[in-house]
Amino acid sequence: MRAYDIIDIKKNGGTLTDEQIREFMRAYLEGEVEDYQVSALLMAICLRGMTSEETHSLTMAIRDSGDVLDFEGIEGFRVDKHSTGGVGDKTSLIVAPIVASLGVKVAKMSGRGLGHTGGTIDKLESIDSFEVSIDRDKFESIVNDIGLCIIGQTAEIAPLDKRLYALRDVTATVDSIPLIASSIMGKKLAMADDGIVLDVKCGKGAFMKSIEDSTTLARAMVDIGAMAGKKTVAIITDMNSPLGYAIGNALEVREAIEVLKGKQVDDLRRLCICLSAHMLHLYTAEDISRCEEKCIEAIDSGRAYEKFRQMVIAQGGDVSLIDDEDKLLRARYSVEVLSEQSGYIYSQDAEAYGKIALHLGAGRRTKSDSISYNAGIILSKKVGDSVRSGEVIATLYADDMSLMDDARDMLLDATIISDTPPPTRDIILGEVR
Amino acid sequence: MRAYDIIDIKKNGGTLTDEQIREFMRAYLEGEVEDYQVSALLMAICLRGMTSEETHSLTMAIRDSGDVLDFEGIEGFRVDKHSTGGVGDKTSLIVAPIVASLGVKVAKMSGRGLGHTGGTIDKLESIDSFEVSIDRDKFESIVNDIGLCIIGQTAEIAPLDKRLYALRDVTATVDSIPLIASSIMGKKLAMADDGIVLDVKCGKGAFMKSIEDSTTLARAMVDIGAMAGKKTVAIITDMNSPLGYAIGNALEVREAIEVLKGKQVDDLRRLCICLSAHMLHLYTAEDISRCEEKCIEAIDSGRAYEKFRQMVIAQGGDVSLIDDEDKLLRARYSVEVLSEQSGYIYSQDAEAYGKIALHLGAGRRTKSDSISYNAGIILSKKVGDSVRSGEVIATLYADDMSLMDDARDMLLDATIISDTPPPTRDIILGEVR
Repeated sequence: MRAYDIIDIKKNGGTLTDEQIREFMRAYLEGEVEDYQVSALLMAICLRGMTSEETHSLTMAIRDSGDVLDFEGIEGFRVDKHSTGGVGDKTSLIVAPIVASLGVKVAKMSGRGLGHTGGTIDKLESIDSFEVSIDRDKFESIVNDIGLCIIGQTAEIAPLDKRLYALRDVTATVDSIPLIASSIMGKKLAMADDGIVLDVKCGKGAFMKSIEDSTTLARAMVDIGAMAGKKTVAIITDMNSPLGYAIGNALEVREAIEVLKGKQVDDLRRLCICLSAHMLHLYTAEDISRCEEKCIEAIDSGRAYEKFRQMVIAQGGDVSLIDDEDKLLRARYSVEVLSEQSGYIYSQDAEAYGKIALHLGAGRRTKSDSISYNAGIILSKKVGDSVRSGEVIATLYADDMSLMDDARDMLLDATIISDTPPPTRDIILGEVR
Repeated sequence: MRAYDIIDIKKNGGTLTDEQIREFMRAYLEGEVEDYQVSALLMAICLRGMTSEETHSLTMAIRDSGDVLDFEGIEGFRVDKHSTGGVGDKTSLIVAPIVASLGVKVAKMSGRGLGHTGGTIDKLESIDSFEVSIDRDKFESIVNDIGLCIIGQTAEIAPLDKRLYALRDVTATVDSIPLIASSIMGKKLAMADDGIVLDVKCGKGAFMKSIEDSTTLARAMVDIGAMAGKKTVAIITDMNSPLGYAIGNALEVREAIEVLKGKQVDDLRRLCICLSAHMLHLYTAEDISRCEEKCIEAIDSGRAYEKFRQMVIAQGGDVSLIDDEDKLLRARYSVEVLSEQSGYIYSQDAEAYGKIALHLGAGRRTKSDSISYNAGIILSKKVGDSVRSGEVIATLYADDMSLMDDARDMLLDATIISDTPPPTRDIILGEVR
């Protein structure tokens, strides 16, 4: 089997066999197939698509390219939640303790990645002394003891995905549903959870801009999960404006704690209850509405927050920052951004807000960048709120004052104020199972 | 302008500007754009196509990547003929002296290339002492004196084409009409002839299998020529079975001489008269039928052969091999292949015959291969001929006897004999101007 023939089949709109896909990728990893051949295949996949069987084969090639964990030492039913990536998305920090307090096991290994803010483990590291490098035995024993533990990736998970993604990123082959689906699911399936809840973002701040594309991606991922024998469900959620009020590592941890302590953060609380109810449902198979009630009760009773607190203690973090979450507001400088108009917040462009957070230092542009845990944005107004000229619409946080002027201008540009309120929009747009 | 954006535009079916195409290719040649980005763009071009303006821009980028010759020292009207490549195609050796004897200047620089036989200059080198490395001044003075000279490429013609072709060859992106057209025309336009006659092959032994594809390719190349201000015409010709009776370097020179001496080699003579008439027409603008008469007269009067002989003398070759062309049959071994059936030759698969010639040593698989001038095939029967069991259908020539058995089996496999004669087929299928 020659790489050439495999590229040629896909170029001509044909269907590749499982053996062809696996062999091509094996040869790539072993240096027998060149980057320029892979990028040609990726472009052909972008334009010709893949059947669900081909997508499944590529997913398995990605999964099997590295360590496939089994966590045999963990007892119980393990569920993971994965988001396709949004601005202000701190749901993992909230849903993990909710479901852990209800008996679901959450053993989460998380990468750092690039983006407008750090990943989940970067966010947790904004809690002083919080330890994300924990060996496998201790990790498993924490999960067995308290039901959850979130650490950085130690195993070599899906190295093929890293190589493919690096190529896609420079060859305009990122936005292909089979490539996105296999990338996400290849990594997820290497974790060997019993159930997976996917949060597929849709809108200006997400990769998928339309409900149709989001649904197609969700369907592709759920099908892969099913073919791999995992209980998988996808929730399609709105990502036109930032989720919640906080964007930035420590700022998002603070908001997550507020929600766990019962604060009614409209869209964020609603989404977290939806996601955690679906996670619980994969475990108990009870009605979703019953699962939602249990998740609300877990928050309202304080048990979800208590579970989060147990995790912070187990992982060595400074609990005083959790018990008084306002202590997490530690940026050297803060600047209030005042509205220049009166009216209603018509839109807050999620992608642009993400770029502001990145500008302020909350994220990484390249792997070697350091991130500022303290930097970010806290909104005072959300889409639909009325605002008067001169009223605060957001506060910027950074350790470097020189970043503020540009950030303020960017924020005003990214915020549209209108005379009439915008149509209301639900955060939950659909579900695929 | 980023390479990424250019790939993305083409991936999404957009149209690239002249500046974008030239800038991308400039950056590629200067090492700022990587092979894997170029192969992604090439695949996107294969699947999305290019407008005639885009194809023209790519052609000019290829032409301008190397030396663009002007041959200012040559007086008169220069016409070149280019074939897209076929088996047994020795037409250049015949049409160049025909039109040179009628006042057209033929200043041909030819590459060696890979294939079932060598290129035109390899074929000429099978004449002892024939010199293909001639400096520019002497080249121009030979063309001025006798009207034609055929030498190897000394200038660096279209290095971008070499790089693109090397990539296309390993990424299944060869069969794209805009890529083929720009590759051929980019090199042709670097030669700065006044007129170009293209022989676009069609059929099993050609790149283009259908008359539709051949016509589209011909149209693309003629349009490029016109945009560049060159008189350009394309003839679409059949390449299902080998052209003429001889395949192999010295064997093809021998057959070319036979045709120049007046032998009625059906398809080959007809094609050469058609091509040379069109070359002449670009110069004189007389009716094609009048041009054909003149070309026939050039052969029948011996002036075309005399012109070929002048070229051999001017380029230092051994004329005794020309005057008695049977002296070119110099292979150490020859083996007759006998028919195993009686009937009619229904088909002779041109591509398979090409592979047999390559197997016998007539061509190069890689650039560093040496070729055997003596090796090849001479057919005794052509498509449509009747044959009896045990009758000779072809003779194989090689300097290595061990190659013969396989070649014989391959030839019998590549030859279909039927009870009824096949439909007759004209060598000339169409014309695009």
